[in-house]
Amino acid sequence: MQLGLSVSDSDASPFTPLVVLELAHDTKAEAIAWLLNRIRDKQRNGGAELLVDQLLFPAQDGQKPNPNVFVVGSTLQRLLIGAEDVGLFKEFQDGTMRGFTYANRESFKDFEGDGEGFLSDAECQYIVKHELDTLRAKNEEYIPGYPKYKLYPGKSIVRRLQSKGVLVQYFPLHNKEDLKRLSFSWYKKIKLSFQPLDDIRSYFGEGLGLYFGFLEYFTFALIPMALIGIPYYLFDWEDYDKYVLFAVFNLVWSTVFLEVWKRCSATLAYSWGTLGRKKAFEEPRAGFHGPLGLNPVTGREEPIYPSSKRHLRIYLVSVPFVLLCLYLSFYVMMVYFDMEFWAISIYHENPNFATSVLLFVPSIIYAVVIEIMNLLYRYAAEFLTDWENHRLESSFQNHLVLKVLVFNFVNCFASLFYIAFVMQDMVLLRQSLATLLITSQILNQVMEAFLPYWLQRRRNKRVYKRMRRLMGDKELPLLEQIQLETEMNTYLGTFDDYLEQFLLFGYVSLFSCVYPLAAVLVVLNNITEVYSDAFKMCHVFKRPFSEPAANIGVWQLAFETMSIIAVVTNCALIALSPQVKAYFPESDAQLILTVVAIEHVLLAFKFILAFVIPDVPKHIQVKLSKLDFESLEALKKRRRALGRKSWKLRRPEIRGLSEL
Amino acid sequence: MQLGLSVSDSDASPFTPLVVLELAHDTKAEAIAWLLNRIRDKQRNGGAELLVDQLLFPAQDGQKPNPNVFVVGSTLQRLLIGAEDVGLFKEFQDGTMRGFTYANRESFKDFEGDGEGFLSDAECQYIVKHELDTLRAKNEEYIPGYPKYKLYPGKSIVRRLQSKGVLVQYFPLHNKEDLKRLSFSWYKKIKLSFQPLDDIRSYFGEGLGLYFGFLEYFTFALIPMALIGIPYYLFDWEDYDKYVLFAVFNLVWSTVFLEVWKRCSATLAYSWGTLGRKKAFEEPRAGFHGPLGLNPVTGREEPIYPSSKRHLRIYLVSVPFVLLCLYLSFYVMMVYFDMEFWAISIYHENPNFATSVLLFVPSIIYAVVIEIMNLLYRYAAEFLTDWENHRLESSFQNHLVLKVLVFNFVNCFASLFYIAFVMQDMVLLRQSLATLLITSQILNQVMEAFLPYWLQRRRNKRVYKRMRRLMGDKELPLLEQIQLETEMNTYLGTFDDYLEQFLLFGYVSLFSCVYPLAAVLVVLNNITEVYSDAFKMCHVFKRPFSEPAANIGVWQLAFETMSIIAVVTNCALIALSPQVKAYFPESDAQLILTVVAIEHVLLAFKFILAFVIPDVPKHIQVKLSKLDFESLEALKKRRRALGRKSWKLRRPEIRGLSEL
Repeated sequence: MQLGLSVSDSDASPFTPLVVLELAHDTKAEAIAWLLNRIRDKQRNGGAELLVDQLLFPAQDGQKPNPNVFVVGSTLQRLLIGAEDVGLFKEFQDGTMRGFTYANRESFKDFEGDGEGFLSDAECQYIVKHELDTLRAKNEEYIPGYPKYKLYPGKSIVRRLQSKGVLVQYFPLHNKEDLKRLSFSWYKKIKLSFQPLDDIRSYFGEGLGLYFGFLEYFTFALIPMALIGIPYYLFDWEDYDKYVLFAVFNLVWSTVFLEVWKRCSATLAYSWGTLGRKKAFEEPRAGFHGPLGLNPVTGREEPIYPSSKRHLRIYLVSVPFVLLCLYLSFYVMMVYFDMEFWAISIYHENPNFATSVLLFVPSIIYAVVIEIMNLLYRYAAEFLTDWENHRLESSFQNHLVLKVLVFNFVNCFASLFYIAFVMQDMVLLRQSLATLLITSQILNQVMEAFLPYWLQRRRNKRVYKRMRRLMGDKELPLLEQIQLETEMNTYLGTFDDYLEQFLLFGYVSLFSCVYPLAAVLVVLNNITEVYSDAFKMCHVFKRPFSEPAANIGVWQLAFETMSIIAVVTNCALIALSPQVKAYFPESDAQLILTVVAIEHVLLAFKFILAFVIPDVPKHIQVKLSKLDFESLEALKKRRRALGRKSWKLRRPEIRGLSEL
Repeated sequence: MQLGLSVSDSDASPFTPLVVLELAHDTKAEAIAWLLNRIRDKQRNGGAELLVDQLLFPAQDGQKPNPNVFVVGSTLQRLLIGAEDVGLFKEFQDGTMRGFTYANRESFKDFEGDGEGFLSDAECQYIVKHELDTLRAKNEEYIPGYPKYKLYPGKSIVRRLQSKGVLVQYFPLHNKEDLKRLSFSWYKKIKLSFQPLDDIRSYFGEGLGLYFGFLEYFTFALIPMALIGIPYYLFDWEDYDKYVLFAVFNLVWSTVFLEVWKRCSATLAYSWGTLGRKKAFEEPRAGFHGPLGLNPVTGREEPIYPSSKRHLRIYLVSVPFVLLCLYLSFYVMMVYFDMEFWAISIYHENPNFATSVLLFVPSIIYAVVIEIMNLLYRYAAEFLTDWENHRLESSFQNHLVLKVLVFNFVNCFASLFYIAFVMQDMVLLRQSLATLLITSQILNQVMEAFLPYWLQRRRNKRVYKRMRRLMGDKELPLLEQIQLETEMNTYLGTFDDYLEQFLLFGYVSLFSCVYPLAAVLVVLNNITEVYSDAFKMCHVFKRPFSEPAANIGVWQLAFETMSIIAVVTNCALIALSPQVKAYFPESDAQLILTVVAIEHVLLAFKFILAFVIPDVPKHIQVKLSKLDFESLEALKKRRRALGRKSWKLRRPEIRGLSEL
């Protein structure tokens, strides 16, 4: 007991803790007892058949610690059965990736002995999470102790506890040794090298593995562009007519870049076993509500919310709201330009120190207002998307991404578009671009990694001190670790990381022909980004649950849309270049027609290219078809065997030829 | 024997003939004996286990008839087993469509007694075809009697016989009663009504069912356009400024039209059981050749042809050839316009009867040359696509369709584009459009249905006469029928029918705002098209094997591409209208910029619309997910049961918590 670990289930042996469950401080005892019982119960009784233990933290500074913190673990066999339940793909003896089955476990490549080490930590935690999430109410009508927290047969218990605030959080534990090894090979080495993507994936899961893979790929893809950009910068600083070639390169680059990424991503996803994997049936998200009804797919009871109502909310409220915000953003931009002109005119009227300081005021105000607007909009978007009441987490995420994306795009690029195409001032465009890129880079790195780390560190020191004071010099690794991790920030997913890359991709593909150094800056940014992101994943945030992902999802679409907008923008920039204008001295109409024709040809070329390049490399396609073929053949054989059994010998049908 | 039917297998009972096999006149007896034996052999010996009989036609006019004509049939049970092999979907008791299994046959909706009538004729014939096609060589090294016609284990026997010309043809027999019933409800009724799509599908298969469904849908979709077109035609014949509204309507219509078709097609395909159906592994096509190797997917021996070589052939020969042909087509068009101008100038110089006749000469020559070019190009395209040596019939078809489509598009529309955008002569455009539409309509109907029918009839009369002369007045329905059908033309698939609809869609969506009557003409054409196509399917051609199809395949893409081109064309036509030009009296540049901006917005809107409208209606989506969910749950249950058996009770892992 002094160790702070109460083994309430007296006949259980110690186990590796995988996941921490934190219930609210004041959770009723009967609810806890019921929950623990359901978690421990045998699968045939509808339990999760997992191991669970209570953690008792020592009192600190007179504050009573939360007594309702639990660690969940599992036996190895339960995990292997669970691996089959979640449909995990593993490498088979013949080198293909196949759905793991417990019965065939010996035929999988890395399965040795009893299977120790076959599943990575992240996989074990994912399985435990899945088993907890699919722990369903049987005939309980409410959560024991809380008659108001209704349950119905088939309702996920964990989701109900979460949505009612009884379950404060649950998260997977870091594995200190693995983490040390990973962080060494990832960012603590001095020499530059590829990221250990496979290790990242097996520690953090496929979703994050793909993000870091994309980050690396994007950075490498930018290098040729950066190399071409440097001489432009060094020799032709003011000669911005020459960017026609650069713009054309830009176009081809952005198309090929995205198509090749699809293939890389398919290769990664195949080797990680998420490409061929069938998606399990998705549960409704925790916040989804509506009157109880029968789900037409599962036939189970669950809240029903008609999609017509959701569509009404989307099209009558959300869409107008987003449009209004876009209008507001435009309006703010126009006010900024007015202020800018006003400041310049005052400076020209009376050039002194006070008025020269005034020159900076509009930009500063505008930058601050943009940040505030982004923040407010983000809250509004989350509220609205939640209010739209999406049944699935994935569709919630898609709608949120779309909303935030459109607004961020306009907010970040509107002023650049205005400068480029309305004011047609390429020098100002270049300046604004450089300012935006550099400041957003610095701000991002600070806000994203170093500030949270600093806050984290301060908090940790306090915890360390407290623990040390209480325990003397005794080492308390696990309990201390759990205490620390419970208080760490939660990583909210790759959303913000992708958003940042999306905006950087925008700067490069939309305008870099005016400011070829942009690619260089983005490369530099991304190199530091790898380090700060890696650092933040390892030391600032709670370990996230691994998310199986076969691709970067909606972001692929976002990047592709951006690359289409880039074609239009680059063509327009080409048309504005004095050099190109010189070819059509007589009429603007001729110039515009030519450029529009070129733009259409480029767009058509882009679509054809995207169509012609296969999304999945041939050798992976072969492996996938092989699996399909084998399962078809196996099915056929089984049928033949079955058919023959029930094939009674009968006389052939007497019909037809008797007509003769 | 007098009946002309020799039952060579003495212990077999008469059966319903489903498929006719015609071998070459001089096929060696040992090859025939071997083939028949393989067809009759038990499945467990690698045979097809089908029933087969020789047909002996009486000698006619001193000519010896082909003795090597066989009819193939099957027992009902063999067909049911085969239905499972090909993965047929049938309606289950609960109203969903499920893969048919012999073991669960009683649970399917229309299964009564021993299953008589459960499978449609077309399905039975499709199953027989599949079983014949997948009849594979075992250890034969060549076809008996033909040491040069090599075989290897796993090679489809029928395909080798076909590619060597030993098997002349094999085709399914018409069912006279069903055909009478179908043709009555389809086109012999006087009153207008919907086509009996379900009957068409169960007689001709899903591929043709979808074609006629599309034809009907397209015709109905054109009616609003035709209704709007009539007043334009009646009241504003010369006032072609007003077509802006019509063009906008055109745009929205063509997008919505195609999106809604996808949903209709999914509904049809679902109810016909082809939507959820898994595609079987595709065999190499008969003409595919290359050195023997191992197929990486199946692990079986088959010809191997590296796709890099194929790509070289495509990109270095086929693509340049197509481009050359397009150039030639342009060149011919320019010559035509030169001749046209020359003829007009001669007429103006010296207007008399001879020169006024001369005015028509260029058009006539051009029309003839276009037809000849189309024909020659079609042969060239078929030759080239065959030479590209595609492994799969489907990819052969796709490449052929693409080649023919591009050329036909240019050949048919180039002159219209030239008149519209280079000559900018809207009156001439309207005239050309009308001429092209009306003549191509009349030509098509004649060439497609009535000419073959007339030839057919003449031939049939000869056959009837011969038979009657030989047999006296005795009725010889089956033998006569087989004799007649053997000599009928083979229907080469829906290619030409879709191509015609594609070009009509082009006329309507590209230019109808200039000539609003186009939609009316196309509606009239399609109404007669339904009748002539129905007639030709029922009476002119051999019955085709049913082709399972879940959608209209590459044609959906072709129509969508056309509708994108239509956006561009319509916007350009709007820009050329004097009414719109009047809004921008000062500068053409302003006008062009505005129109281009509108075009981009419309294109973006089109893509968003296509993205937002789900391709499969909700209720079908629910049924599909339900099936997925159930199979997942069943798998899980089976696993649980299996897992529990091998779940040995062991002590939980002792690892981890011992660190404390």
